[in-house]
Amino acid sequence: MTASLRVSQKRLEKFIYEAFLKTGLPESDAQTMGLLMAEAELQGSDGHGVIRMVPYITRFKGGGVNLQPNIRVVKEKAAMALIDGDNGMGHLVMKKATELAIQKAKVAGVAWVGSVHSNHAGPASLYARMPLAHDMIGLYFAVGNANHLPPWGGLSMLLSTNPIACAIPALHEAPVILDMATTVTSYGKVKAKRQRGEMMPEGWMIHRDGTPLLDPSKADEGMLLPIGGYKGYGLALIIGMLAGTLNGAAMGNAVVDFNQDSSSPTNTGQAIMVIDPDAFGDIHEFKKNMDTLIQEMRNSERMPGVDRIWLPGEQSHQKRNDYMREGIPIPDALAQQLHGLALELGIAPLASN
Amino acid sequence: MTASLRVSQKRLEKFIYEAFLKTGLPESDAQTMGLLMAEAELQGSDGHGVIRMVPYITRFKGGGVNLQPNIRVVKEKAAMALIDGDNGMGHLVMKKATELAIQKAKVAGVAWVGSVHSNHAGPASLYARMPLAHDMIGLYFAVGNANHLPPWGGLSMLLSTNPIACAIPALHEAPVILDMATTVTSYGKVKAKRQRGEMMPEGWMIHRDGTPLLDPSKADEGMLLPIGGYKGYGLALIIGMLAGTLNGAAMGNAVVDFNQDSSSPTNTGQAIMVIDPDAFGDIHEFKKNMDTLIQEMRNSERMPGVDRIWLPGEQSHQKRNDYMREGIPIPDALAQQLHGLALELGIAPLASN
Repeated sequence: MTASLRVSQKRLEKFIYEAFLKTGLPESDAQTMGLLMAEAELQGSDGHGVIRMVPYITRFKGGGVNLQPNIRVVKEKAAMALIDGDNGMGHLVMKKATELAIQKAKVAGVAWVGSVHSNHAGPASLYARMPLAHDMIGLYFAVGNANHLPPWGGLSMLLSTNPIACAIPALHEAPVILDMATTVTSYGKVKAKRQRGEMMPEGWMIHRDGTPLLDPSKADEGMLLPIGGYKGYGLALIIGMLAGTLNGAAMGNAVVDFNQDSSSPTNTGQAIMVIDPDAFGDIHEFKKNMDTLIQEMRNSERMPGVDRIWLPGEQSHQKRNDYMREGIPIPDALAQQLHGLALELGIAPLASN
Repeated sequence: MTASLRVSQKRLEKFIYEAFLKTGLPESDAQTMGLLMAEAELQGSDGHGVIRMVPYITRFKGGGVNLQPNIRVVKEKAAMALIDGDNGMGHLVMKKATELAIQKAKVAGVAWVGSVHSNHAGPASLYARMPLAHDMIGLYFAVGNANHLPPWGGLSMLLSTNPIACAIPALHEAPVILDMATTVTSYGKVKAKRQRGEMMPEGWMIHRDGTPLLDPSKADEGMLLPIGGYKGYGLALIIGMLAGTLNGAAMGNAVVDFNQDSSSPTNTGQAIMVIDPDAFGDIHEFKKNMDTLIQEMRNSERMPGVDRIWLPGEQSHQKRNDYMREGIPIPDALAQQLHGLALELGIAPLASN
């Protein structure tokens, strides 16, 4: 992957903001999209960052997304809320949901906010990370926006890669941030292999007869494999029930493939949970214990050939530091696509400052 | 596995009650142990049922467990509590924790109760299932009581099989109940293979050099594999942080192997979360949607050679029905062990009625 272009977080925010303003989002919503999508790039979630701009705008044009949604709380108790996204972009819905969950967790100790009539919201960890600024723990669950996984033993595509993310603060160490699909690999990584003309390793996908599928250009003929076999199927299913069914959002057959369909509302469901460690004990003590645990893992004896033990989120943390210093790399093919988008919308291209 | 002996749930409850009464538990606590351990057997969790009686009593004798604990709430907010188990049996601690979480979720919509200074509590799904009787969802997390898993790429045993369980009610269908270790297999299944003199399949365990370990009698020389490689490591780690570190309970190096050590308090941590679907919408509608989803999965087109698609918890549900009708099978070796225990304690053996 060559990336001749590197841009600062601020420049990228502005580009995204201008593009979404031009395509019909209200000013403050376009700003939020800029902040969150640039943040996704900064943390290295490039499969869920600006690579999604053109697909999002395709859905805007197709009428699949409400550009002026009335995002509102429709159900509420001390430790929960349900937010109706009114078919607005998921970033806008889940930012509001997370802010509400943080506020509620400060009072109740723990809070859970779900979404209905939402849309794709970018990487799961974007929302799980938000409570960290308040010394709180975030957990995020979502129904993916395209079904590539059958139930265990089955062939019908009834499940998505339904992700889970969890962010836990530490003291001097970087926070522990897990962000994972419940499949061995995400569909985005399959697409990346296809773009690079590479074969996939065994264990990522299988053909409908159960034999390994290695050629990513034939991905449509096969299916993703869940982690741990029936266990990953179970995880994908319950995450979908908690983030989708519980909220009255789409699951199973009702999931709309937003790559194939630009006009139908997806009725995406997500959920954010916030835990305040200070309710359980002293926050400083907790963060110190997190540091100890992190260091124990890092200092583990290593298998032959292993240079370093990583904590979940540590590589993303390093990437963030690098990108803040050196700029966010935009791969050439993507840079070209975004240049075309800039010309089409009449905004300043990314390359210019 | 031959099981010449089958006993009714009631008979098993009484046997467990009498044994624990004789070994020093207060009457009501011995009753609770009988109810919960017989329930574990009824749902087919034989690795976490009466097979644990002798090991538990060994720890009672060794002074590792407080037989007359003062189990109490030490931290509390609208949607959370922390329960200090005072080193009592985990069943007693987590029953109290789950009842409190149910009560809180009825008011706040969602609640989370953690434990500190607890002990082994049997199968995870035992507690996740309790909210079902109130048409609520249960989620359970625990720090396992022996470390058999290193961090990904490592060799030091710093993690346990830290399980997650989730139970979601349906209308006419059986509830969906996931109960899984974050390792490909549990250590209990390795022990069962050893008892039967069978080899393990590849993928369960590896040697310290990374090569497959197939002989269960050599399990001590190797380590369990997490599901999905680094993903399962991440899951085991965050579950341990949420169920252990958050509560001030043991994690990492601090975990006591309760099979090797009969006298040290384990300071086990667990967490139960309860969600009230009625807070999010109409409970009847939710349960109807669960039925639809369950039927979609079951009716999926199947891979060649697959007779049936199972939902998580469905096989356990069938087992429960069978065992209620035909009695709970007690494998011969276990029956013999329990017979010895009955003689030692001077209680009526299981075989008698």
